[in-house]
Amino acid sequence: MLPITWTARARRAALCQHMPPAISRPGTASRPSKRRLHTKPPNYSSVEAAPAAVQAHHESGRGMRAIDDIMARRARAGKLVAGIAAASDSDMFKGSTEGMPKAKRWDNHLSRESKAREPCTLKQAARHLKKPGLISLGGGLPSSEVFPFAELGMKVPRPPHFSEAETLESGQTVKVGKYDVRDGRGDAVYDLSIALNYGQSTGSAQMMRFLTEHTEVICRPPYADWRVCQTVGSTGALEQALRMFLDRDRGDSILTEEFSFSTALETVAPLGIRAFGVRIDQQGLVPEAMDEMLSSWNPAERGGARKPHVLYTVPSGQNPTGATQGAERRRAIYRVAQKHDLFILEDEPYYFLQMQPYREGAATPPSPPANVEEFVSSLVPSLVSMDVDGRVMRMDSLSKVLVPGSRLGWITASEQIVERYQRHAEVASQGPSGFSQVILHKLLDETWGHEGYLQWLMNLGVEYTRKRDRLLAACEEHLPRDLVSWTPPAAGMFMWLTVDHAQHPEAGKRDIKDIEEEIFNSCIDNGVLVARGSWFLTEKDRPLPGLYFRTTFASASAENMSEAISRFGRAVRDSFGRK
Amino acid sequence: MLPITWTARARRAALCQHMPPAISRPGTASRPSKRRLHTKPPNYSSVEAAPAAVQAHHESGRGMRAIDDIMARRARAGKLVAGIAAASDSDMFKGSTEGMPKAKRWDNHLSRESKAREPCTLKQAARHLKKPGLISLGGGLPSSEVFPFAELGMKVPRPPHFSEAETLESGQTVKVGKYDVRDGRGDAVYDLSIALNYGQSTGSAQMMRFLTEHTEVICRPPYADWRVCQTVGSTGALEQALRMFLDRDRGDSILTEEFSFSTALETVAPLGIRAFGVRIDQQGLVPEAMDEMLSSWNPAERGGARKPHVLYTVPSGQNPTGATQGAERRRAIYRVAQKHDLFILEDEPYYFLQMQPYREGAATPPSPPANVEEFVSSLVPSLVSMDVDGRVMRMDSLSKVLVPGSRLGWITASEQIVERYQRHAEVASQGPSGFSQVILHKLLDETWGHEGYLQWLMNLGVEYTRKRDRLLAACEEHLPRDLVSWTPPAAGMFMWLTVDHAQHPEAGKRDIKDIEEEIFNSCIDNGVLVARGSWFLTEKDRPLPGLYFRTTFASASAENMSEAISRFGRAVRDSFGRK
Repeated sequence: MLPITWTARARRAALCQHMPPAISRPGTASRPSKRRLHTKPPNYSSVEAAPAAVQAHHESGRGMRAIDDIMARRARAGKLVAGIAAASDSDMFKGSTEGMPKAKRWDNHLSRESKAREPCTLKQAARHLKKPGLISLGGGLPSSEVFPFAELGMKVPRPPHFSEAETLESGQTVKVGKYDVRDGRGDAVYDLSIALNYGQSTGSAQMMRFLTEHTEVICRPPYADWRVCQTVGSTGALEQALRMFLDRDRGDSILTEEFSFSTALETVAPLGIRAFGVRIDQQGLVPEAMDEMLSSWNPAERGGARKPHVLYTVPSGQNPTGATQGAERRRAIYRVAQKHDLFILEDEPYYFLQMQPYREGAATPPSPPANVEEFVSSLVPSLVSMDVDGRVMRMDSLSKVLVPGSRLGWITASEQIVERYQRHAEVASQGPSGFSQVILHKLLDETWGHEGYLQWLMNLGVEYTRKRDRLLAACEEHLPRDLVSWTPPAAGMFMWLTVDHAQHPEAGKRDIKDIEEEIFNSCIDNGVLVARGSWFLTEKDRPLPGLYFRTTFASASAENMSEAISRFGRAVRDSFGRK
Repeated sequence: MLPITWTARARRAALCQHMPPAISRPGTASRPSKRRLHTKPPNYSSVEAAPAAVQAHHESGRGMRAIDDIMARRARAGKLVAGIAAASDSDMFKGSTEGMPKAKRWDNHLSRESKAREPCTLKQAARHLKKPGLISLGGGLPSSEVFPFAELGMKVPRPPHFSEAETLESGQTVKVGKYDVRDGRGDAVYDLSIALNYGQSTGSAQMMRFLTEHTEVICRPPYADWRVCQTVGSTGALEQALRMFLDRDRGDSILTEEFSFSTALETVAPLGIRAFGVRIDQQGLVPEAMDEMLSSWNPAERGGARKPHVLYTVPSGQNPTGATQGAERRRAIYRVAQKHDLFILEDEPYYFLQMQPYREGAATPPSPPANVEEFVSSLVPSLVSMDVDGRVMRMDSLSKVLVPGSRLGWITASEQIVERYQRHAEVASQGPSGFSQVILHKLLDETWGHEGYLQWLMNLGVEYTRKRDRLLAACEEHLPRDLVSWTPPAAGMFMWLTVDHAQHPEAGKRDIKDIEEEIFNSCIDNGVLVARGSWFLTEKDRPLPGLYFRTTFASASAENMSEAISRFGRAVRDSFGRK
């Protein structure tokens, strides 16, 4: 039985947020129009009216309207004053959540380690610094006098002229000085003397403001006490999250897609936690399969692992399969999570790499979103945007949308979860690099602003659509389609190639993994590197269910992509005894 | 029984490395002269000759001579070629270690978690990229085309003109472009297209080279297979190290100073690991006390904790006490570690903040080192520099010597330990920010060079000497010396004030912690923040052995320092009923 309140809220949300239709068959769905509603109504079990606050919340909209609200709110709040190591949280920067319900508590889901964390004594003592006239001999913060950086500058594009050529021609050089705030330069709220000193593990208040607002524009979680917290990237955030929720001594285990990001699996394994794979289809994780697995869970059949209470999923452009969960698929997954009380770790590095649908053989590609409003409306909703319980931690990363080298991302979750995360970060990463923060703040907040950043993301979707289409064209040209099949990805960087192993001359006699290895080695000999499906198999002790290879269209040029796929095709043909 | 080889090597080291005398009474010891040898010979049990390789190793010297060797080696090696995510290790950049012994293995010291770590599959696959002509559709690395940074620039001082005023006047602006390497700009070996993409968890080859060389100049561990690995700072490095060595299920515990860095204690506690405090004196950890503790270890008396196999220590300018272990003290600690087979986590954030001795009432302060050679010779030797077994992991940080916001440091340890560390970092931090790395490389390697950086560090020692002396002057002026005592620190940022609680009117009737709280609150009321001794007590369940406060001279101005100490004095007098 699902809670009634959620389904009612979900319906309200679906009616107000202009979500695109579920991507039921990537590659054939038409592009969602700007204000399109669901053509097929979701399967609601109740029509109870949503609370007024939740209704108002969802009606406040996304995109430009949300940005206008944010800018008006900033103007009312006055200049942001946040010095060295100033504490901050999203509540300082969010719109009103009055009357909204609070997230559930997750005490029983937390690990022994996480529950044992106490706040960092020295960071707590910093609260006294607010006292006027107080002189601190307390914290060991160096004086900015001895920082050898007087100024940083960077040359960046001017929206919407984002290409390298345009940047060289019309790009702008922006600078950050050491004492811009003290000296009142250009209404500065952040400078090197602040960014390069110690900070809070949440990251700076300046970036906290930008990321909270951005999250409000895009995700807008439907409960009152959501917060964001900066991370050193989603790899690190996932490791912290695993330690927060999973306890080897309790026999804990985790669910994920049956093929999952190998680095994530390698993060889980040494913790003594077993990962179990849920069946996937073209839209990724299959909720019915997850429900069935959990409903019939028997620890004795699972090496003693108790019923999982955590799901790790990559909903958009999943790594390695490239699958994207449509809106209705996400809602169904969320309902199963509610039924079995799962906490969801939603890893969304590819969320903004959502692409236009692929039309094989079409003369012209579909046109991209006309503006920021349309772009935001076209995005498939995040699990956290339908998270009435506060059971989702969404992990965002700038690695795929700006630069991996920033080592800066953020999580969005309830106050309780963010607080536990923060306590851990205080004694681990201590938050992202100050160089990264000040450079990104200068770019995203001061130079581009929310709209400029959304334009950048929209442009990136167009770039990745082009890249993907090149790979698809190469596959259509060079691969034997009776042997190799694929689904055009709707998001991300990856395409999953399925090779029909049943047609192999030695099918049934040879291990699939062995054939996979032969093809992989032949690929290397032919001069192309692809990733082997077996690297991503969640349950390593199970037989490989098929012959798969992961390819990426992120980095190779059109010419190289074509040559690379041709080489891959040769390797497959060789193994299958084709000419 | 100590291994004979070590003592012989140590003697050789003592004769060749021009170490300063043990700082037996900080504040009274005279400044070590350039080529001074130990006045009191260390307690060697053997005079067996050191192997020729070790002898040659130690005779190759530190300081300018080492830098000359390094530059000659670089010239012979030719231009460094290291592209996106290039793998590297210290062996690529070290001088010859031919004939040197290898570090011991630490298999029995490692935790179950650490032993279970496998190399990251996708990073391993990157080895195929070396094949000429290979096209990669393997890794999900974004193309640098879509990085919105065309150029970074920074204004930095020109050695030795390091002050803020000089930087404004004579500072240089240096730039890093996106494609400096591809375009062959100014012999560039590192640029934004490399630094801002994904990298290895060890950090970039470019910074690996600089840090390996720097470590060779300063520490030069006396075994063959030492390596460095970049970190996101020592807080994160310590957390990883704790997880590498300590296992709650094995009943593991850790030794540290009886007053220790509170954040370190807070890192240990949630792991279910108990920390035990070793008695300290003016030179920090007392080796005889540690030996006694370990020799008589009884788990039943220690809440079931098995005999510790790890020591965490801050040898220079210890946090919170400010104590610095002299050279002979370090050797004695190392000998005890050998006797009880301890692995040492040497946390050295303040190593380069070694100051000139304090002379109360002297008209002029002692003169600083005359040059880089003298500066390097004057540094008290690191534990890792006497580590013949490879039982030390030294943690370095740039937070105290450049900027905390870099979130970049490094560890120095044996190949085995660095490899385990790296395996963890691959699924956690993924190494430091690329912005931090490229900015620091531009500054340290390309602009200042090794000599310029040593000049910066030397200058910093002078700055901190000045800051410390101001705090000492304030203490001498404002504190009741029959109640409050202190030892002038020889390194770091902290001074530990001991208040004689026996003189308190309610001594014996009131808990020391209660008096401490009263004084602390009174300090806040009077407008000064100091840190309470109890915050740093290692064994929280033990009674506080005395009344202590930690103060720092790092950040306050001379004027504020004087006022702050005067306020602290008032709070103490008030509590003790003095006028």
